[in-house]
Amino acid sequence: MARTIRVGLLGFGTVGTGVYRMLRDNEQAILARVGAPMQITRIGVRDLDKPREAPADLVTTDLDSIVADPEIDVIVEVIGGTDPAGRLIAAALENGKPVVTANKEWMSKEGQRYVRLAAERGLDLHYEAAVGGGIPLIQPLKHQLAGNDVLRMMGILNGTTNFILTRMTDEGADFGDVLRDAQAAGYAEADPTADVDGYDAQYKLAILASIAFGREVDPASIYREGIRTVGKRDIELAAFFGYKIKLLGIVTRTGQDRLLARVHPTMIRKSHPLASVDGVYNGLWFQGDYVGDVMFSGRGAGAEPTASAVVGDLVDIGRNLVAGGRGSAIPVGERIASDPLDALRSSYYVRMTVADRPKVLGQIANAFGDAEVSLAAMEMRPLEGGQGEIVFLTHDASERQVQGALAAVARADEMNRVEGMIRVEE
Amino acid sequence: MARTIRVGLLGFGTVGTGVYRMLRDNEQAILARVGAPMQITRIGVRDLDKPREAPADLVTTDLDSIVADPEIDVIVEVIGGTDPAGRLIAAALENGKPVVTANKEWMSKEGQRYVRLAAERGLDLHYEAAVGGGIPLIQPLKHQLAGNDVLRMMGILNGTTNFILTRMTDEGADFGDVLRDAQAAGYAEADPTADVDGYDAQYKLAILASIAFGREVDPASIYREGIRTVGKRDIELAAFFGYKIKLLGIVTRTGQDRLLARVHPTMIRKSHPLASVDGVYNGLWFQGDYVGDVMFSGRGAGAEPTASAVVGDLVDIGRNLVAGGRGSAIPVGERIASDPLDALRSSYYVRMTVADRPKVLGQIANAFGDAEVSLAAMEMRPLEGGQGEIVFLTHDASERQVQGALAAVARADEMNRVEGMIRVEE
Repeated sequence: MARTIRVGLLGFGTVGTGVYRMLRDNEQAILARVGAPMQITRIGVRDLDKPREAPADLVTTDLDSIVADPEIDVIVEVIGGTDPAGRLIAAALENGKPVVTANKEWMSKEGQRYVRLAAERGLDLHYEAAVGGGIPLIQPLKHQLAGNDVLRMMGILNGTTNFILTRMTDEGADFGDVLRDAQAAGYAEADPTADVDGYDAQYKLAILASIAFGREVDPASIYREGIRTVGKRDIELAAFFGYKIKLLGIVTRTGQDRLLARVHPTMIRKSHPLASVDGVYNGLWFQGDYVGDVMFSGRGAGAEPTASAVVGDLVDIGRNLVAGGRGSAIPVGERIASDPLDALRSSYYVRMTVADRPKVLGQIANAFGDAEVSLAAMEMRPLEGGQGEIVFLTHDASERQVQGALAAVARADEMNRVEGMIRVEE
Repeated sequence: MARTIRVGLLGFGTVGTGVYRMLRDNEQAILARVGAPMQITRIGVRDLDKPREAPADLVTTDLDSIVADPEIDVIVEVIGGTDPAGRLIAAALENGKPVVTANKEWMSKEGQRYVRLAAERGLDLHYEAAVGGGIPLIQPLKHQLAGNDVLRMMGILNGTTNFILTRMTDEGADFGDVLRDAQAAGYAEADPTADVDGYDAQYKLAILASIAFGREVDPASIYREGIRTVGKRDIELAAFFGYKIKLLGIVTRTGQDRLLARVHPTMIRKSHPLASVDGVYNGLWFQGDYVGDVMFSGRGAGAEPTASAVVGDLVDIGRNLVAGGRGSAIPVGERIASDPLDALRSSYYVRMTVADRPKVLGQIANAFGDAEVSLAAMEMRPLEGGQGEIVFLTHDASERQVQGALAAVARADEMNRVEGMIRVEE
């Protein structure tokens, strides 16, 4: 029996507590799989006063002392954010310690630089929990799918927004009402911006795209649009046309070392595997040149699924330490930017409120025709106050052309308004 | 740049050709991920005369010379079957060569012994392609999900039978007709026994169960029942009650170091994620104590998806060779047998043809009541020839009790016959 592997845990919030419990509850199974006991021997927190279930003598507010401690074999970072998390991870690697992190923001913004550092030093830097909670995504992309030329990935990467959209769909409810319920139930934060405006999904898509395409993808270059503008009328109309609306992260190859990555509400066919990933579940649909399409889904957030991913990474590192192997950090190439959204070709759903006057349909048809956007389907109905609702689905068109047509419609009459525009994945 | 990694390929059938093409087509991406070129330098075949797309000077019928060749760095075995595949893999490991195999039969029957050998020698023995074609299943179970206590796994592990059941469901067709079509289209073998009678799924379930539960599971101890007895009437009735019929491999924990593994046609709710895995697709639904439920699906067979899994394993081994690491073969504990099916508790669907006489319903109700099997739903209709059809869904009951009740029904009248009995997963 090898000696105990001593884990230093940075952060003891929801995820940190989950990791602590899982290592305790499944101690025997983990011992069997690692070949050595694995134990949390130090825990770094911000505030000593909060009641905690770990023994008080493990807990300290001096996090730097943990990453410097020669008695610690491996560091788990579950603080989140870029600072001090990034500094502590860097210090741990400098001190020769492998690291597990669940930190999507830091990984997407700065992490790849430290993956290179880890690889140079023969250390592991694992981050399975940063995307998709407990669903194995990052390591399968790095390993089992690594022989593929990746054609396309689409993912439901944020549980809060998927919960909100699912409730809106099931209940015909408004965004604001569902958000308030989700906040009361603890599924959404008091400040929901990171989830609802798509930042969380943007970070996660940057991480997945970097691995799948082998180049670090700048998260800031990824087009990002949240779900605040999705109306219950849009969800109704989506269902009418045979679609569901999901907040998707989508990345496609657009050329040699070029890709287009984007996060926005998307209409997908009800028969698509992602359409039935509902509630707080996450899912990833992957398309490679040899494997075809592969689908993953599961619980994308929460203490226990996230702990599952962190502990899976710890088991790997533990085995490596026991076997005396080198780490397996897999660096990706230099940073690239996503293509701008202007370059997108897609189908589009457009819902407009228009002046209910004799020539308005002709104006609109001309605006789209002049922009060379051809229309696949249309619905019209009168509204109160001398207005009408017009809904289009376009054939394949460019983002630039569609935006041009919408601007022309708005210019044609001050009563015309674009109420909703949602990209459609066929 | 590290020197070229030289691959010896054993077998050049469908999968072998797929691996050859993928290493050629995605040469640059694989080079970037491995850090060294990876090239097939020898190919072992049974018959030199068949036309092949590989250069003739790579091809030999002397397979033993490949696994002994000091110029070969890694062996890929895609012959299938236990002999000579097993002997050649053993020789490769003895000679210090890491191995990738797609061989489900050999892996389930003998492979775990050689995983131990590989681990002792610090070599990789990878077999991702043995289960689920291109879907990452084996490595995620070994690594990212390894911290979980596994509660249950259910999988659609055979594409041929899933194709047949899907066609029967969509078209209301009979088993025999769809099988003939599938054989003509190349989706089923001329001798379909391995697929249709569940042997293929039995091997694959043994492999998955061994990894998930950490003990080598004897495939021969796994209850196995194929799809020949599934009638189109059963599929109709399943739909009526809200279910689909799938050939599932199911394994559940039944105690400390005890499990029950079984392969049989199963009714699952239409809303279950596995119910929408149709055609030649495979899927695995995994339930762990921390991760909750995770779902994987994709193309479970065919040259290209299987090549994707083999090449993913090769990329891992290549990285390991370049980094100078030790292999990561993960042995499991000593062999155990599955519990016998008698121990199962489940719900059951039963379709009977009975004598259409005044007392028959009472006899049947008594037979089930005497066996302490309580009934959840029933359908009756008259048939021609003085007979009737009675269909039951039971509440949770034991396999032994249900079998006892069915025997009593058959004894009660010579006209009574059990036409179909299908276990139901709720």
